[in-house]
Amino acid sequence: MSTFGTAFRVTTYGESHCKSVGCIIDGVPPGLALSEADIQTQLTRRRPGQSKLTTPRDEKDRVTIQSGCEFGHTLGTPICLTVQNQDQRPHDYSETDLYPRPSHADWTYLQKYGVKASSGGGRSSARETIGRVAAGAVAEKYLAEAHGIEIVAFVSSVGAIGMDAFDGDDAALQALLGRITRAEVDATPVRCPDAAASERMQAEILACSEAKNSTGGTVTCVVRNVPAGLGEPCFDKLEARLAHAMLSIPATKGFEVGSGFRGTQLRGSEHNDAFVRDGRGGLRTASNHSGGIQGGISNGEHIYFRVAFKPPATISQDQRTATYAGEDGTLAARGRHDPCVVPRAVPIVEAMAALVVMDALLVQNGRSATRALLKPVPAELKGIKPI
Amino acid sequence: MSTFGTAFRVTTYGESHCKSVGCIIDGVPPGLALSEADIQTQLTRRRPGQSKLTTPRDEKDRVTIQSGCEFGHTLGTPICLTVQNQDQRPHDYSETDLYPRPSHADWTYLQKYGVKASSGGGRSSARETIGRVAAGAVAEKYLAEAHGIEIVAFVSSVGAIGMDAFDGDDAALQALLGRITRAEVDATPVRCPDAAASERMQAEILACSEAKNSTGGTVTCVVRNVPAGLGEPCFDKLEARLAHAMLSIPATKGFEVGSGFRGTQLRGSEHNDAFVRDGRGGLRTASNHSGGIQGGISNGEHIYFRVAFKPPATISQDQRTATYAGEDGTLAARGRHDPCVVPRAVPIVEAMAALVVMDALLVQNGRSATRALLKPVPAELKGIKPI
Amino acid sequence: MSTFGTAFRVTTYGESHCKSVGCIIDGVPPGLALSEADIQTQLTRRRPGQSKLTTPRDEKDRVTIQSGCEFGHTLGTPICLTVQNQDQRPHDYSETDLYPRPSHADWTYLQKYGVKASSGGGRSSARETIGRVAAGAVAEKYLAEAHGIEIVAFVSSVGAIGMDAFDGDDAALQALLGRITRAEVDATPVRCPDAAASERMQAEILACSEAKNSTGGTVTCVVRNVPAGLGEPCFDKLEARLAHAMLSIPATKGFEVGSGFRGTQLRGSEHNDAFVRDGRGGLRTASNHSGGIQGGISNGEHIYFRVAFKPPATISQDQRTATYAGEDGTLAARGRHDPCVVPRAVPIVEAMAALVVMDALLVQNGRSATRALLKPVPAELKGIKPI
Amino acid sequence: MSTFGTAFRVTTYGESHCKSVGCIIDGVPPGLALSEADIQTQLTRRRPGQSKLTTPRDEKDRVTIQSGCEFGHTLGTPICLTVQNQDQRPHDYSETDLYPRPSHADWTYLQKYGVKASSGGGRSSARETIGRVAAGAVAEKYLAEAHGIEIVAFVSSVGAIGMDAFDGDDAALQALLGRITRAEVDATPVRCPDAAASERMQAEILACSEAKNSTGGTVTCVVRNVPAGLGEPCFDKLEARLAHAMLSIPATKGFEVGSGFRGTQLRGSEHNDAFVRDGRGGLRTASNHSGGIQGGISNGEHIYFRVAFKPPATISQDQRTATYAGEDGTLAARGRHDPCVVPRAVPIVEAMAALVVMDALLVQNGRSATRALLKPVPAELKGIKPI
Repeated sequence: MSTFGTAFRVTTYGESHCKSVGCIIDGVPPGLALSEADIQTQLTRRRPGQSKLTTPRDEKDRVTIQSGCEFGHTLGTPICLTVQNQDQRPHDYSETDLYPRPSHADWTYLQKYGVKASSGGGRSSARETIGRVAAGAVAEKYLAEAHGIEIVAFVSSVGAIGMDAFDGDDAALQALLGRITRAEVDATPVRCPDAAASERMQAEILACSEAKNSTGGTVTCVVRNVPAGLGEPCFDKLEARLAHAMLSIPATKGFEVGSGFRGTQLRGSEHNDAFVRDGRGGLRTASNHSGGIQGGISNGEHIYFRVAFKPPATISQDQRTATYAGEDGTLAARGRHDPCVVPRAVPIVEAMAALVVMDALLVQNGRSATRALLKPVPAELKGIKPI
Repeated sequence: MSTFGTAFRVTTYGESHCKSVGCIIDGVPPGLALSEADIQTQLTRRRPGQSKLTTPRDEKDRVTIQSGCEFGHTLGTPICLTVQNQDQRPHDYSETDLYPRPSHADWTYLQKYGVKASSGGGRSSARETIGRVAAGAVAEKYLAEAHGIEIVAFVSSVGAIGMDAFDGDDAALQALLGRITRAEVDATPVRCPDAAASERMQAEILACSEAKNSTGGTVTCVVRNVPAGLGEPCFDKLEARLAHAMLSIPATKGFEVGSGFRGTQLRGSEHNDAFVRDGRGGLRTASNHSGGIQGGISNGEHIYFRVAFKPPATISQDQRTATYAGEDGTLAARGRHDPCVVPRAVPIVEAMAALVVMDALLVQNGRSATRALLKPVPAELKGIKPI
Repeated sequence: MSTFGTAFRVTTYGESHCKSVGCIIDGVPPGLALSEADIQTQLTRRRPGQSKLTTPRDEKDRVTIQSGCEFGHTLGTPICLTVQNQDQRPHDYSETDLYPRPSHADWTYLQKYGVKASSGGGRSSARETIGRVAAGAVAEKYLAEAHGIEIVAFVSSVGAIGMDAFDGDDAALQALLGRITRAEVDATPVRCPDAAASERMQAEILACSEAKNSTGGTVTCVVRNVPAGLGEPCFDKLEARLAHAMLSIPATKGFEVGSGFRGTQLRGSEHNDAFVRDGRGGLRTASNHSGGIQGGISNGEHIYFRVAFKPPATISQDQRTATYAGEDGTLAARGRHDPCVVPRAVPIVEAMAALVVMDALLVQNGRSATRALLKPVPAELKGIKPI
Repeated sequence: MSTFGTAFRVTTYGESHCKSVGCIIDGVPPGLALSEADIQTQLTRRRPGQSKLTTPRDEKDRVTIQSGCEFGHTLGTPICLTVQNQDQRPHDYSETDLYPRPSHADWTYLQKYGVKASSGGGRSSARETIGRVAAGAVAEKYLAEAHGIEIVAFVSSVGAIGMDAFDGDDAALQALLGRITRAEVDATPVRCPDAAASERMQAEILACSEAKNSTGGTVTCVVRNVPAGLGEPCFDKLEARLAHAMLSIPATKGFEVGSGFRGTQLRGSEHNDAFVRDGRGGLRTASNHSGGIQGGISNGEHIYFRVAFKPPATISQDQRTATYAGEDGTLAARGRHDPCVVPRAVPIVEAMAALVVMDALLVQNGRSATRALLKPVPAELKGIKPI
């Protein structure tokens, strides 16, 4: 449905041609300093028309806090965030209404709901992600202030063009994940922090655009400074919630955490992350194939994962396909469309990561605080062999 | 937490050294013929000791239906399924209790819960999956009887050894997905339906075992005959729930649906699945890069996806690591362990897929049946342009 | 939290002094004819200033459908409904800010959230109920169209003044429950369908108002034409969900269904509702002490229940109490306040009843439709003894 | 469905004639000392055959902890608790299978599920409550150890016979609520702490038993030492969750908290609970008409409420009713049945109260601990007027 999370719960609403889009966030900690500017930054990064690489429609997308704040702080009550739609009328019939767009949601939405929204795919519209990004910004505000958590996503590939850092050099990748900032990511329009690769990616996207075609890509995301202990086995392991979150973003086809698919080719002796002293009286791991999660629970290392985005289904070239009525024909798409979604997907991936971590944090904090009032446990349960 | 699903809900319990493991399934349709034998088949496929490729411990794992059935049929009330543990006592201290196993859950469970189960990783034990497999068998029974749904998973790679079918020949892959059966899968101990690859995989696993090491792999799964319309946008898109389900299985590191990561390298014109007549008055797609899901909703084509499993963390060779107390040392693991989990993971992947589809089906059936009592909608909403 | 329901889910937001109040409704069946006028009727019945019995502030409360509808019909996607607040600024400090109002939510909200909204009780404001009433109107629209379900609530007592119909004459009560309409209820400003009692209630409310005091009362509600089979044992029995719903309305202190507290004084032989033929080949009950629910499941008879509302905490006379800082003093409340909430509570009770029934209907429809595809069960399970 | 709670979640299973009944508890704080004896006490208080006032079947009902504990302490993982059924076979056909029992769940279960369990009402059986009582005992163990919370329920009326303490003397009632213990409650078989009333109640129950009839009654419950701040507005107000919990117990017809229905007859000036200093630097209320809850949130005073139980539907005298097939006839019930459920309902009410408070505590602890890391809020939000 339209709600994500358990303790920090986001419910989104809105499609392309209705009055507004947005969300209600329930479970926000009270007393958090929050203004519309805190939220607008990520919405602006998400919106189309930022560069020649993305669709030129300027959606504006100004957010309004409807509730849950006073004097610039959260009250702990639900926060409703809204963004007006510019084009609010159900659109007129056009030739394209005859055809369900191939690999788009038009046909399945009609199968599921039995009605056809004028936008075709209803909530599969990219505008649905506005509510997510707005909610994610609120979660991020808390995570940064309370724990210094940093979430940075970036484009790691466009079509077949990848970053050099990902060519098997794990040390280089880990170094990048440890230091990368949003400012670096935004330094190029394609949002890839590898300047050389970024140039090639940009050329590829423009080539697709000129060919009235589209291309896919991947987004990599790192979450730094997450406390150990987050994630709820067995079904709500942290990676399971992250996978759920990422595959709920339109156009995604895959998710991998830590060593991911590549790690399946390693042997255990290579893959295992040995423990070493962390210099603060505890442990950390020498390597990070685990991607910051062991047994579904954060271990305090950087959490990192990669998300696959398919090439956008809506392309401007003619496509042979069939009408709703089953007649063969050629769909000639009109309008300008994103030839590649990954640059704009960056803040969406960050937002969903923030929602997952924030929710896990609230639940674990409830457990820890509740547990803190109990008497100490016997030595057998303390995890330290008595000598 | 330990519950999965909304309308068809499974709650599992149990760890390695407690009295039993199992689950409660809530929301099972009443009137379904169900016996313990229906459930045992998949549990037997899951259990260790099936071949020289897996751990030789014979866990037996006989399931008992505690409730929710009479006269061989479900009552619609919760079904509790239990399997006794053979080794029920918290184990004695050993040298390994000094060390959190690298890349295992020992250390994070202790961080999260503040207590250390004698099994170390608590619910991260593979025995936790018994409840899932048992519950999945119940879902499968319904899906097969009511819709002819077939769910077949198989090992698609072990370490660097993949199936020929996956070497870029999409037509061959699709043909395999359309016809493969569990009998074919079980024809080799490694559960890979490609005989030549299976031989090489088997050799690789034995080599790992001899080297006191372990290896990863991937499992591919197809779900056939799923009706169009399943999946709940936006956050519970069918692929999002599948990703969640799969990443909740121990040792998983990645998930991809349809064209997956490889599809990110295609252009839209190649990737889009054109519509064609299905011969029954409706539409289907000519290709299936979508993996049977568009916009988060099943489109009636085969749903297929691939899951990455890391090499098992517990290996029999010595590992340099640190103790809980932060002292450097060498962990010498003992006992026999699975050098590769993917053969046994096959029924677990099938079970989780069944749970996701069953849940989505109940929710969509509720919508459809509820909607059926309303008057017809205006022409503008019917998705067919009036001419 | 702020979400109610499982399959038909309402999430509300907003407090007294924020920009707007409203809700997101998820799970609305697609294809339902719906306009703002359908929703406005109940909002108008809820709003203050309708008569001299209620607070004279005219809040207007015009609802806007933000999403989820096109061409006057629902799309099956989330429907966001909003109502602008007239007074949107956090109010200025006044003497009353020194004191937590006795029996109001000011003090507990501060204890819970650690911040004090300028409205004091935050979401305990009566304005929070706007989202509920709006959502309930959508549910009612479906229930009426698809099943002819009628939901009518009315004031059954004000202070010590009750309706004659409730003086132990069960037959008269049942007759009333079977025929009463909203038009009859709205015939008097106090919304009591007993003309004589209504006069006395009105006088009592005015007396309270003149005495700068307040009074409590009860609202009785009947739901007619509910199909048998709704309600989800064991924890979501229909009466349990109704009780939850009603006690979530501000100022409520009690709930009873069917014979309620009075029925505890009967013997089983008097209380049991014998079965008789219903004239359509099935069964119904000769009496209805059960209130239309047996074992947590609707039996097809009228569902009826009664809700207790305490006297409003905010009164205009001086009260001896203590400041937040713990100093004894006298709180002199200002402004005009409702001396009795029950007339305005009528549409709120109806709305919450609609939400409960709608949610239960969707879940049961999912079960029934899912079950319908299975083979017939053995005779032993059919509930009819083979002869 | 069969799950109750959000952070502390209980899922129950089992009916009269299956192998066992019990529950899985998820979200138990780790490190809590817990043994089967801790749980057995309340199960023993619940079980039948305790005195001549209750049914003489001796169900034994020994609980087994299946999982989630080691070395006498909880691990934080799910705890499965089971109790074997003595009579595990679906029973034989008898004359009573022709008739749905009036006011029992036989008929509605058949309407809902379309199958008839041999026990008739399926999960409406009193044995279903075993899982609740067992889970409640675990919650109580924590609440007592961590917060000194005491939960005591008692029989406040049987048929028309009430306790003197409830005859309008609120001071006497409050005094009783402040001091009553389970030992006092169990001093008489009827579990009413008013010796004189208890005698009359006992006589009434025996009279019912001899007349092959049954009678209703009420149970009152107090929860002492609950911290302020529990309860989740708006839909999960503490009283709403309590009402839900209580009305989910079989045979309940009503719930009232604090002043309840009687309080609707008071004026605001009488009903309001003025604040006074609590002697520890904070506030408390001088009276407690609120029943320890304001605005849906606990205020630190005693929480008390009353639950109505109807007369048991199964009576041993003949009843005129109709068969499933719609033929008029006389149902002659057989066997021994409880003439009055309230004495045995006492531990069930306590258990459900414990589940509600425990769940609310975990959620509020999560909020408080999460909030504690934020910077202080501005003076305007601190709830204290700056002077």
